[in-house]
Amino acid sequence: MTQMEAARQGIITNEMKEVAEQERVDAEEVRRAIADGTAVIPCNKNHKGLKPCGIGSGLRTKVNANVGTSEAYADLEEELLKAKAAIEAGADAIMDLSTGGDIAAIRKAILAEIHVPLGTVPIYEVGVRARKERGSVVEFTEEELFEVIEEQAEQGVDFMTVHCGVTLEAVERLRREGRITDIVSRGGAFLTGWMLKSGRQNPLYEKFDKLLEIARKYDITLSLGDGLRPGCLADATDRAQIQELIVLGELVQEARKHGVQVMVEGPGHVPMDQIEANVKLQKRICHGAPFYVLGPLVTDVAAGYDHIAAAIGGAIAAAAGADFLCYVTPAEHLGLPTVEDVREGVIASRIAAHAADIVKGVSGARKWDLEMAKARKNLDWDSQIKLAIDPVKAARYREKRNTSDTKTCTICGNFCAMDVVAKFLGTEKINC
Amino acid sequence: MTQMEAARQGIITNEMKEVAEQERVDAEEVRRAIADGTAVIPCNKNHKGLKPCGIGSGLRTKVNANVGTSEAYADLEEELLKAKAAIEAGADAIMDLSTGGDIAAIRKAILAEIHVPLGTVPIYEVGVRARKERGSVVEFTEEELFEVIEEQAEQGVDFMTVHCGVTLEAVERLRREGRITDIVSRGGAFLTGWMLKSGRQNPLYEKFDKLLEIARKYDITLSLGDGLRPGCLADATDRAQIQELIVLGELVQEARKHGVQVMVEGPGHVPMDQIEANVKLQKRICHGAPFYVLGPLVTDVAAGYDHIAAAIGGAIAAAAGADFLCYVTPAEHLGLPTVEDVREGVIASRIAAHAADIVKGVSGARKWDLEMAKARKNLDWDSQIKLAIDPVKAARYREKRNTSDTKTCTICGNFCAMDVVAKFLGTEKINC
Repeated sequence: MTQMEAARQGIITNEMKEVAEQERVDAEEVRRAIADGTAVIPCNKNHKGLKPCGIGSGLRTKVNANVGTSEAYADLEEELLKAKAAIEAGADAIMDLSTGGDIAAIRKAILAEIHVPLGTVPIYEVGVRARKERGSVVEFTEEELFEVIEEQAEQGVDFMTVHCGVTLEAVERLRREGRITDIVSRGGAFLTGWMLKSGRQNPLYEKFDKLLEIARKYDITLSLGDGLRPGCLADATDRAQIQELIVLGELVQEARKHGVQVMVEGPGHVPMDQIEANVKLQKRICHGAPFYVLGPLVTDVAAGYDHIAAAIGGAIAAAAGADFLCYVTPAEHLGLPTVEDVREGVIASRIAAHAADIVKGVSGARKWDLEMAKARKNLDWDSQIKLAIDPVKAARYREKRNTSDTKTCTICGNFCAMDVVAKFLGTEKINC
Repeated sequence: MTQMEAARQGIITNEMKEVAEQERVDAEEVRRAIADGTAVIPCNKNHKGLKPCGIGSGLRTKVNANVGTSEAYADLEEELLKAKAAIEAGADAIMDLSTGGDIAAIRKAILAEIHVPLGTVPIYEVGVRARKERGSVVEFTEEELFEVIEEQAEQGVDFMTVHCGVTLEAVERLRREGRITDIVSRGGAFLTGWMLKSGRQNPLYEKFDKLLEIARKYDITLSLGDGLRPGCLADATDRAQIQELIVLGELVQEARKHGVQVMVEGPGHVPMDQIEANVKLQKRICHGAPFYVLGPLVTDVAAGYDHIAAAIGGAIAAAAGADFLCYVTPAEHLGLPTVEDVREGVIASRIAAHAADIVKGVSGARKWDLEMAKARKNLDWDSQIKLAIDPVKAARYREKRNTSDTKTCTICGNFCAMDVVAKFLGTEKINC
């Protein structure tokens, strides 16, 4: 039984219980959301040691960090370090997007070492194998595609990005639209190449039932990829993107019929004033399926600082109802991230997620800020550092610039507003 | 004549012309906005070599960077370096918030070296002198307060934060409200201390006419400070804050009557879902005066990354109509920023400002992103670097992670979506 099937039979699984405990919500509420499909718990039956994580309605907004080798940088150890750094920084899930070196071995190592849900994009491995064996990423057969999916499923992957909505019709719509950056999704591009070359329909769409069968067997959560997501602001929310979303909405219903957990991926590059509309549209078209957004980036020009452009977009998206933020690192659009970039990317996304959780009314979100506010008022530095979203960095800043015996900080020194006011409101008399 | 007086007489000054040229808008539109008070051009008649900068309706969202010594770090050279780094990173204005060392000398040096508008908070110097001479920041006379303002005006300061709305009545409202962090504005705290000690009204309110006289003489733009701004999310948009805003709205009208340019400062720490309301309220209550927001920070817990929390809030505020963003550095709440922190803070604010300008419809904003999108599509790396918001950092990332002869980047290598799609859409045949 999948989590969804269990939930529908009224069963509160151990995973649901754990999620409810983590989130301090009622387990019955979690069960109901899983049954409805408005939340998912990606947990492959073969992923040993997994700490379950819920994504969706009523739950804390989650953050995913991508790691993975490329052809130029195929160092397994470094990617493992990145995965660990991401989790240490508070990432809720990891996606392994490796395309270099022994991809299966890397995935195996990550699965063994990390205990958060792991996601992949199986079409990458399909394309990489095809290129190695036949010289082109699009030289693969349907059978090979499903073989790779089954292999990864068997290995224990918890959620998979599958670009099922990149149909021949959607690509034709994209052509008619006339985009600036066409297709920027690698998976979307591989499948589009395959379709245009073979003249045949996307197998992930045409044989969606086969995909559902594998997903159901291992309880893999399908993450319906947005292969036609905009790669720049000018392409955002266009007919191609929305056409794909409509197809994904149909597939959400189909997956639910089969008891398969499913979420939907979203843009991308989106101007601030279109973000809320994107979220509302996804929620309606996909009948409340969890929304997993890639950013969105609110400008195209922030290369070197795309984690900040993504934090702005991610916060707005999450406040509007998005459930899962894919992090973006400062290296986005420029190269593979370093361990430090990964860390910065995770924290930026967590700030966005938390800012949104405050206004979403997520359990405990406001309390954290209130505790920090009280620690500030009391000039209680130990608590301020402990309550910071990244205590390590906060401590580093504090130590670098302040002597440990000053109660106030070096910004204001003896001119601390908290001090002055405390004295005159009679709260406490300090050195002003 | 002040810019406002000239504008009202139908005169398009050189400053208005320059602003119109920079912004690629009609000079007559700039004149009209200055006449109405919906935009300002802070330009003290004594600030030699100033490159004028317009702030307000119809203009690009501007970014201010704070620099300044503290008692613990009173190194003039370092603050000058910060000011220069801020301008190099694209700051539109600088505020000198020095409280350590020879404050007048620091200001003089900054004024001589920088050519963007300079702002100050005169009450800091008043408090520092009082403490030095009489042992407490609140031991000053009204005369001394106005003396310092006149001295700074004479020196060439272009805009001044004056906390005129911190009245006895507003402080009483704050007391009745019962806040978590009371007053976090240093200027607001000094004045509150002065009032509670002396039992007298805020001289900047009671003798506002005297302030207007000085401002008019040098054409200083008054930046009506929000001394009662919230210092944490829980205090945001409370009665004390709005009470002060109402007073500031009255003072805006009064300033305009006297031909004095004026803008209004805003919070602070604000939950995402209250930001738009804050901006709309300020615009209505203050009859369209330019809004200068300090962040706002969308969470209290991001110490070490407050530039990101501020970028989220600043983008939302600017998109809702805020005109001027005060940067926040990663060191906020922890210590004085370094030169590198200043740089990071400025870029984060510029990303927020630009993301908002795109949706505000500011002249040229979308074009920048479109050019970047085209450069990406064409895998034109030189243009991508040049068009990045911080070309220096973008180039550093690119060089670190890529060999100069690869057309694609190391993220995707031979699996570049742009390449695959270009081939199959027939745009260009590359190595896939």
